[in-house]
Amino acid sequence: MSTQTTQDARTISNTPFEANGRQYRPSAQPIVVVCIDGCEDAYLNAAIVRGRMPRLTEIAAGGYRGMARAALPSFTNVNNSAIATGAPPSVTGISGNFFLDPNTGEQKMMNSASYLRCGTIFAAASAAGRKVAVITAKDKLREILGHEMTGIAFSAEKANQTTMAVHGIENVEQIVGAPTPEIYSADASLFVLRAGVSLLTEGLADFLYLSLTDYMQHKFAPEAAESLDFYEAMDTEFGRLLDCGAVLGLTADHGMNAKHDADGLPNVIYLESLLHDQFGEGAQVICPITDPYVLHHGALGSLVMVHLDDSSQADSIGRWILSLDGISDVFDRESAATKLQLPADRIGDLVVMSARDCVIGRTAADHDLSQLSGGLRSHGGRYEEMVPFIVSEPLDAQYAAQASGDVRNFDIYEYTCNGVHA
Amino acid sequence: MSTQTTQDARTISNTPFEANGRQYRPSAQPIVVVCIDGCEDAYLNAAIVRGRMPRLTEIAAGGYRGMARAALPSFTNVNNSAIATGAPPSVTGISGNFFLDPNTGEQKMMNSASYLRCGTIFAAASAAGRKVAVITAKDKLREILGHEMTGIAFSAEKANQTTMAVHGIENVEQIVGAPTPEIYSADASLFVLRAGVSLLTEGLADFLYLSLTDYMQHKFAPEAAESLDFYEAMDTEFGRLLDCGAVLGLTADHGMNAKHDADGLPNVIYLESLLHDQFGEGAQVICPITDPYVLHHGALGSLVMVHLDDSSQADSIGRWILSLDGISDVFDRESAATKLQLPADRIGDLVVMSARDCVIGRTAADHDLSQLSGGLRSHGGRYEEMVPFIVSEPLDAQYAAQASGDVRNFDIYEYTCNGVHA
Repeated sequence: MSTQTTQDARTISNTPFEANGRQYRPSAQPIVVVCIDGCEDAYLNAAIVRGRMPRLTEIAAGGYRGMARAALPSFTNVNNSAIATGAPPSVTGISGNFFLDPNTGEQKMMNSASYLRCGTIFAAASAAGRKVAVITAKDKLREILGHEMTGIAFSAEKANQTTMAVHGIENVEQIVGAPTPEIYSADASLFVLRAGVSLLTEGLADFLYLSLTDYMQHKFAPEAAESLDFYEAMDTEFGRLLDCGAVLGLTADHGMNAKHDADGLPNVIYLESLLHDQFGEGAQVICPITDPYVLHHGALGSLVMVHLDDSSQADSIGRWILSLDGISDVFDRESAATKLQLPADRIGDLVVMSARDCVIGRTAADHDLSQLSGGLRSHGGRYEEMVPFIVSEPLDAQYAAQASGDVRNFDIYEYTCNGVHA
Repeated sequence: MSTQTTQDARTISNTPFEANGRQYRPSAQPIVVVCIDGCEDAYLNAAIVRGRMPRLTEIAAGGYRGMARAALPSFTNVNNSAIATGAPPSVTGISGNFFLDPNTGEQKMMNSASYLRCGTIFAAASAAGRKVAVITAKDKLREILGHEMTGIAFSAEKANQTTMAVHGIENVEQIVGAPTPEIYSADASLFVLRAGVSLLTEGLADFLYLSLTDYMQHKFAPEAAESLDFYEAMDTEFGRLLDCGAVLGLTADHGMNAKHDADGLPNVIYLESLLHDQFGEGAQVICPITDPYVLHHGALGSLVMVHLDDSSQADSIGRWILSLDGISDVFDRESAATKLQLPADRIGDLVVMSARDCVIGRTAADHDLSQLSGGLRSHGGRYEEMVPFIVSEPLDAQYAAQASGDVRNFDIYEYTCNGVHA
């Protein structure tokens, strides 16, 4: 790592900018937002009471710590897109990691920037003169988040494959001083944080988004030794970011709950099978949690889309689904679009959520449970909607008053940019 | 206060007992459950990170701390009845503090034991030889909770009015060493905790339920100095209960959220007025938060019952209500009975919940907002459903496994009695 010292604040642009109807007025300090993927608040609490997160404890006492409402479905792409734009899914167009394309009838990953229906905060910040860096754990997110942005955008997963032309940076391993991590690891997230510290230290960026992966949270409960070690290691990096003079915002894309019985067997509702048995073949279930990395959750989450050949049956089929044990909510397309702020053309005729301890699958054959011997922890529904929302400095009077309301996780850049001026 | 020392554990009955189909196997230690009324988890977090709850911090690190799902409506009587019986509202029959009696068409407080449809854990414990004491802040709860129980049952509110015949105790002020508190105060809750300590110290009880009041949580946000002082004072009493050798269980009846805008003005949907304007006079809205103590919330909560003269309109009116801004959920009677485990005959044709920052009222004339100058904090809906669930000792393997599931706040006696054997 270079011995260069932290950049001089006077070199940082404090030009205000606008994105999706919101004004951002960043100070001439580095702004760093971390999306701690799958950070159910319990992980922070378990580590804090054991003295494992001293820097976060200081932030929570001296800055602001509250809870925010994530976007539903409480999945990764949905919420990273919302955070990156400051806008709900009805504006971003990103309704899942995976969806049924209404134009083609095909099932597709929603990993491409072509699906994004609005600009990002990062593009606007870079246009306003900020040195922007977006670092993700999984490469799948990089393209969406780096959309139309000038600056640095790369993933930990492919850190050893960056080029100046595509990623705005090269020799990442050398800059960070660590090898490209295995994606199914704590290191995949820690590498992202360490890379953020390195970019700040090197003066390569002053407006950062660090998006981690929830592999650890899918695997381990909050009080597990592995989780405590992981959160302690994150705390060290949060401290380094603060020591670089950053305003630090911490939030999450979704929470995380155990979805198995006391014997560790997953509680799964195979909804497409049940619908076919009850109503015939005219219903298709899409699991929007599906992404290229399903080892740790088997593509089982707590929200699915149900597409019907005959939409006029939505009401009666919806009622039947709601009557099933383990189902918490059923919205029709119209209600889901308004109440959950979803893009109506990229959801099912029905949007179905399951209980705190239950997931919804398609058919038994569609899901590989062989890797879930330690039990299943997952997300996607109502009970993974609330996430931590933390700012490293005290909020000013206006934002302190606002924070008593229905804060969203995708307000985090507004709070870190506008909310902490003295 | 007496100089008598803590009772000998050998004098405490460890006879198992049963209540509502659950077995309880308490050890020969004092068992104390505290219902911290309105204890949104954020109150604990704010106090913990500021070092104001050292005993709770120890418990959380060395015992068990998680989150439980309360019963909906997330109101006081509903959840105290559930905790006292180990059963959901569909079994207890207690669906609110206030309801429309289907037999008479009258609106009534649900404060009488005559509304309770099952026995309590306290009655069963006292029959099994435990010295039971139920202490509530508000007198309204005492009758329901003390139903058919032998032992001590009194309220802080009327501590100076107890008789041996009715309450199983007299001279409470002398025993506790403190005067009867004003009900709208922190002391109303602290008196309950101190009375619990005194009963343990005096050997007058070994199986306790201490049910506090949420006056403070309605008035003050988690990080307010008043809240921190209150939680610190509670922590001192938790420590005294532990020092008496008690197994301590802590949970809450409901959470608490701010329900006002950034200017402190309550966000209220006057639903009966809206329904009358839209559909005529055939809809009646009941606010089940209503109780004799409405000064601090104006009878405004986040769940109401809608009774219709013409039940066949439930579906269309329900759809219209769901389309209103600030409404989060609408269940018809049948779905509410199954999904929310409510007694179908004691709810409306529609059960309506509002958003995290929003309450539902009847008409403007029905609610006195004059005392709400500091803003409105309230509860009743989905966003006040999750509450802390804390046990002072480590859970055994079986309960640790169960605790990863959908723990309910009304499981707290099962966990404190059965879950902590070595």
